Amino acid sequence: MSQYDVLTIGNAIVDVISRVEDEALLRLAVEKSAMTLIDAERAVSLYEAMGPAVEMSGGSAGNTVAGLVSLGGTGAYIGKVSSDSLGEIFAHDIRSLGVRYETAPLSGEPPTARCMILVTPDGERSMSTYLGACVELGPEDIDETLVAAAKVTYFEGYLWDPPRAKDAIVKAATIAHDAGNEVAMTLSDSFCVDRYRGEFLELMRSGTVDIVFANEAEALALYETDDLDDALVRIGQDTKRLAVVTRSEKGCVVVRGAERQTFEATRVETVVDTTGAGDLFAAGFLRGYTMGLDDARSAALGAVAAGHIIAQIGPRPMQPLAKIPQAARLLNGG
Amino acid sequence: MSQYDVLTIGNAIVDVISRVEDEALLRLAVEKSAMTLIDAERAVSLYEAMGPAVEMSGGSAGNTVAGLVSLGGTGAYIGKVSSDSLGEIFAHDIRSLGVRYETAPLSGEPPTARCMILVTPDGERSMSTYLGACVELGPEDIDETLVAAAKVTYFEGYLWDPPRAKDAIVKAATIAHDAGNEVAMTLSDSFCVDRYRGEFLELMRSGTVDIVFANEAEALALYETDDLDDALVRIGQDTKRLAVVTRSEKGCVVVRGAERQTFEATRVETVVDTTGAGDLFAAGFLRGYTMGLDDARSAALGAVAAGHIIAQIGPRPMQPLAKIPQAARLLNGG
Repeated sequence: MSQYDVLTIGNAIVDVISRVEDEALLRLAVEKSAMTLIDAERAVSLYEAMGPAVEMSGGSAGNTVAGLVSLGGTGAYIGKVSSDSLGEIFAHDIRSLGVRYETAPLSGEPPTARCMILVTPDGERSMSTYLGACVELGPEDIDETLVAAAKVTYFEGYLWDPPRAKDAIVKAATIAHDAGNEVAMTLSDSFCVDRYRGEFLELMRSGTVDIVFANEAEALALYETDDLDDALVRIGQDTKRLAVVTRSEKGCVVVRGAERQTFEATRVETVVDTTGAGDLFAAGFLRGYTMGLDDARSAALGAVAAGHIIAQIGPRPMQPLAKIPQAARLLNGG
Repeated sequence: MSQYDVLTIGNAIVDVISRVEDEALLRLAVEKSAMTLIDAERAVSLYEAMGPAVEMSGGSAGNTVAGLVSLGGTGAYIGKVSSDSLGEIFAHDIRSLGVRYETAPLSGEPPTARCMILVTPDGERSMSTYLGACVELGPEDIDETLVAAAKVTYFEGYLWDPPRAKDAIVKAATIAHDAGNEVAMTLSDSFCVDRYRGEFLELMRSGTVDIVFANEAEALALYETDDLDDALVRIGQDTKRLAVVTRSEKGCVVVRGAERQTFEATRVETVVDTTGAGDLFAAGFLRGYTMGLDDARSAALGAVAAGHIIAQIGPRPMQPLAKIPQAARLLNGG
């Protein structure tokens, strides 16, 4: 019997969040709405040039498992930090939610990863990530018992950036499938898709991955097309079990082979910070999926979680998502 | 000529902020709405027992100078951190606002101070502070040129907790007065007043301090009375230039000798987190005072700044206060 609904694997990152005007992105040479990888030197110079910030645990897959347990699910996490203050913050935050997190921290350099997030008045976030300790994640960090104990093992496409994490994922996928469990991934970012298009398609077509999460830009990038319909047809053909394509305020499309269903987004009055929107959608959907809910209810849980997170600063819910009336209703079979 | 409107001196602290239900305060044995000093061991055990948190630079006098520059004033800060990640965060945040901050960090233990802030649904904050590196602040950290260059040197009563900071303050006050400048203090917290009542009264009566900021509870504690009128009469007698007593949503009273003026608070729809309310009131008032505004306008600037900070999480403004229309009007002579 599975002990965990979802195990997520990702780059373990502390976010450094600052509100800026659009002109600051130009001045700091940060690409809007994208995730750009930066080295240690740029991390220092960018931080020096930034305004005051708030620090908060982040990392795409970390946010997803935080959202999942916030919705009452059970979760575990694998990701690499260093034995420094930011690493302690990351470990504390995820464990204090009840997420099992036992990945051995590095004892020295490089330091814990950080992502400088500049949030513009339109709520868009532009991210500059220094991967730090994440580059050391490898197959030795995959706990077989843990993978076998999780209904779904979920990982982020961003893991193709560090050198050995992909080997960890292939190992985890084999263990998961041998145990009769499923494997899910997020395509993470359209620039990430551009970097690893062939490898992501191979993960899908080989059946290494059963479930794919993508936003519209990522799905279009995957097939190098401007035609969403075309992308949806092809992602349906390429995905073993199901694909979920999110479209911001236009809702999402769940694709199972040639079948498609469209679901609405949750209306949000004021978008404060879009950081974590995709991560939390995946959290909500996977909470429903691992409870055995139908796609409509799973998509609705995803929409509620994503809608909540973009109305606050930071990518992790500050209050239990399961208490949101709409979420509570869905979780209780409504 | 003064280069800085205000120099503030205080415990340099990074806040670790977490939202909790009231029952958690009981479970964690944290006194509601108070600031309690804790040792390193309790800091570790309390953090382990706390939920996920957000980290943000804090410290009462640090928040005040942050608010002052956010309102267009010029400021400097003196306070002690260690050479660790939290110390770097503190230094970055305050310098990035344009505040001059040159206090030499400790090169080793104890680590940078942190304050665990538990915010309940009513917006009240309950603080547990581990002073860490702050205990090393002493007269050697007072830069004479800096003190002589500031119109007002402002410090927090909390500085009576670490062992040698009071010597630093006496030194700074002498330099300030020799340069023809003024000295202000905040009584910080009613429990702090209970600890140092005699010393605070002596600072006021000896003229070491010209301006006193207190909230109602602190003013009552100072004179061990339940009668606000009595406290206001006596604080007027004891304060050299002026005292400002804040009363939350009831506004504030500015006392100059036997004269009293009462001013309104800014109406706030939803109180999210009261952390920093007093600090930001002092920031606004001092911004007006050092511009030469009358007490009514200074109090109004204090009310706008305090009203803004309690409608967000954390004690430092995330967006420039000078852009708030009501603040902009006051700053432009309206």
